[in-house]
Parts: sequence; C-alpha cells; structure tokens
Amino acid sequence: MEIINDLLAYDGLKIIQRPDMFNFSLDSLMLGYFSEVNYKTEKVMDLCTGNAPVAMYLTLRTKAKIFACEIQDDVYDLAKKSLALNDLEERIHLYHRDLKDIHKVVGVNSFDLVTCNPPYFKLMKTSNLNATDYKTLARHEVTATLEDIIIESKRLLKNKGYLCMVHRPERLAEIFEVLEKHNLAPKNIRFVHPKLGENANSVIIHAQKDAKPGLKVFEPVVVHEGKEYSKKVKEVFHYPHNVL
Amino acid sequence: MEIINDLLAYDGLKIIQRPDMFNFSLDSLMLGYFSEVNYKTEKVMDLCTGNAPVAMYLTLRTKAKIFACEIQDDVYDLAKKSLALNDLEERIHLYHRDLKDIHKVVGVNSFDLVTCNPPYFKLMKTSNLNATDYKTLARHEVTATLEDIIIESKRLLKNKGYLCMVHRPERLAEIFEVLEKHNLAPKNIRFVHPKLGENANSVIIHAQKDAKPGLKVFEPVVVHEGKEYSKKVKEVFHYPHNVL
Repeated sequence: MEIINDLLAYDGLKIIQRPDMFNFSLDSLMLGYFSEVNYKTEKVMDLCTGNAPVAMYLTLRTKAKIFACEIQDDVYDLAKKSLALNDLEERIHLYHRDLKDIHKVVGVNSFDLVTCNPPYFKLMKTSNLNATDYKTLARHEVTATLEDIIIESKRLLKNKGYLCMVHRPERLAEIFEVLEKHNLAPKNIRFVHPKLGENANSVIIHAQKDAKPGLKVFEPVVVHEGKEYSKKVKEVFHYPHNVL
Repeated sequence: MEIINDLLAYDGLKIIQRPDMFNFSLDSLMLGYFSEVNYKTEKVMDLCTGNAPVAMYLTLRTKAKIFACEIQDDVYDLAKKSLALNDLEERIHLYHRDLKDIHKVVGVNSFDLVTCNPPYFKLMKTSNLNATDYKTLARHEVTATLEDIIIESKRLLKNKGYLCMVHRPERLAEIFEVLEKHNLAPKNIRFVHPKLGENANSVIIHAQKDAKPGLKVFEPVVVHEGKEYSKKVKEVFHYPHNVL
C-alpha cells in the first residue's frame, strides 16, 4: 500500500510512503532545513536518500544541482514516483546504487555539500535482524556503515565542502573520531531535544573537508513546547525561511 | 592585593582572590554543581584547583573526603588562606604539587570522582606567552596538557569512577579522542549557552573509567534570560539543592 503524504505543511511537496518502509521523520526535515547551502552552492549529494525527503526539501532552499542515491530497489522506485509526482525528475538526479562507489558515476572532489540521514544503529552480532526488511536496512548499518558514508563523502566533496549528517548523540564521540580519521573536521553541531528538560535525541553535524578543527555548538532545537511544536520546528515544517 | 569575595550568594563560603590571578568563574561553580556525587561517594580529587572554588563548593554537596591539587606557589598559598578562612583545612586535603604525579601521594584506583577546570587553551609555538604570569598558567596548557590531566585522572579513579571536567566546546572532538584513548568513556555532556540563540561557550563532561560507550546530551544551561540570570544559574549560585 502506498500513501501520499505532505512533505511539509504549506509548500505543496508530496511524498509517497509505504507503511512497511521507513517513513520520513523530523530528522530528515531538520537536515534539509539546517544544512549548509548558500548562493555559491552548485552541487549537492544526498546519500541514503530513502524516499528522498531531504533531496526534495533542498529544492526549496537552493538552485544547486541535486543528486540522490538509494540502494534498495523498492525504496528507489518509491523515491522515483515521489519525484515524478512533484515534477522533480529533472531537478533531482536519482541514482539506484550502492553509495560506496557513487563517485564512479558522479565524479570526485566536486560537491559543495553531501547530506545524509544514515542508519543510526550499529549491526551487532547479537542483533539477529531480518536483513531483507526495509526498515531494518534503513535503521541498521547493514549495507553501509558510518565509516563507509564518511569515506564516500570525502571522495565526493570539494576542498572545504561540507558533509551534513543527522545522527544519534550516543554515537557522537565515534562520529568525531571517524570524521577526523578521514580529514573531515567537525565544524558545528546542533542538538535536538524533544522537550525542555529532556536529553537530546538527535544531533545535526557539519564537517568540513580539509579544514582546521574548531567546533561550534549552536543553539539547540527544542521540538515541543507544551503540547505544541516549538516556533523553530514550525519553521522547519513550513516553507523554509532560508531560500536562496 | 587580596580581596575576599563570596563564593556563592547565600552559603557563607568566602574565597580569597587576587586581581593579577585567575579568578573563579561560573564554569567552576557549574562544575561543582553538576559533578557526579552521590551517597556512596567517598573520595574526590579536584585537579588544577586554583584558589579552590570547586573543592569548596563540593563541601556543600558531599560528605566525601575532598582532595585538591595546585602547582603554582602563590595560588596554592591563596587557596590555603581561603580554606583557613572557611575553616575547611581539615575538610579539604590541599596538595602543592604537579598533578602529573599526585597519585604517588594519594594512591591509585581509589577515587570516585575527579573534577577539573583545566587550562582551556593549547600552547601554540606562536602563542608567545609569559609563562610566569599567573593567568597565563591558569589559561594555557603550560604545566599540564589535556592528556596529562586525563592520564592522571585515569590513574586516580576507581573502576567506573567519573572524571568531570569543564571545557570549551571547540575542543570537544579532541577531548573525546583523548578520553577514549585512555579508556574513559564520555557518558554525558551538558552545554552552557550565554543566552538563548547563542552558541555554547562551555561544556561539562562526565567520562567514566572502563565503562561502555554511549553518550547522553543533557538539557543545556542558558545563563542569562534577558538581563537576569536564569533560574538554573541562580540555583548554581545559591545553596546547592542537591546536598547529600
């Protein structure tokens, strides 16, 4: 069963989802909203694109060429349908491919920005997962690990280009370690707390290729204020303010 | 010239300061307030104690034996005077010593908690500092580096004991790296933002000896709300709520 949902509240973009697949979440929208694009941005790659929420969101913020990559057959098909539905087939270059060698078709050292909402969970020997299940593949590092993603991002990015990734705070130390191992300097992070007084459950990280170290910790996002979404999250849901 | 200041607003503790030395800051009070003590805490070491604000603050929160260590002669003398003024000479065991071998006099693997408000800045070849200046030594890694502090903390701590450190967010990635190199797992962090909408300027880090990885990012502290201190900071300034 396929369901058509609004990607955002008021911008008209639609996204096709399936209940048995990983559905887009606030994390993807935040990645689309906070990732570093500016008037000079020419090429953007969205890895682990899924049904392409980040790539579609970015069409609202930048005139850059947008590329997206998805490995799972049926998820790729769904993304393709969403692009067609929104008339974005020319705008977003969607690849059905393993991200680990996407540079072979799109080229190296040429992207200003790589975005990624990756699988959050490590694959443990004890995980005992169904590796053919769509949600399992979206959530666990079955087809690509954190390091695979970082290595490929490094290849794709220009000198001083940015990788913008959303992830779990639990893995922050490891993320920093792997980024630095591959010469991507963590430049800024922004935590997302579900409510005031609660621990962060997501973090948005910008790392810059071949840059000097020096991390900034931006104002956190608090998702709910009482029973309502916060002003900032409403901005994320609605038409992005930061269109270029 | 020596000046007697209140350490906190209402608890009666006084601290002796000198304008030419590093004076205690909100960072020290937050370290005192947020560091992990509980009813089982028996031994605490405060490294880079300066004029001992953290050690004195901790007397309000725990009945544990408190140790403190300062390398600079005149700063040590000032701390000693502050302890005498507050009648804390029996309560806080103050050592005039290089922290790098303090374990030789206080023993290894026996502390529940090590606290440290260390020098924040790396010593660069280009720094061109006056290495005899009190403030320089308090702010720059002249007598001890981040790694020296972490190595010695590891020696002092019990299995599963905590190092609680306040530092600059800019150095977070490096801090995680050095902690993990020495088998101290970053367990939780709390950022301090001067105001809503501003980047964090401090971070309070708890790392646990020989523990599993898995980081929690606690609710941040915002220091000012309009022209006032926030409720949380007033709690830090006033009598700690979390006395054991």
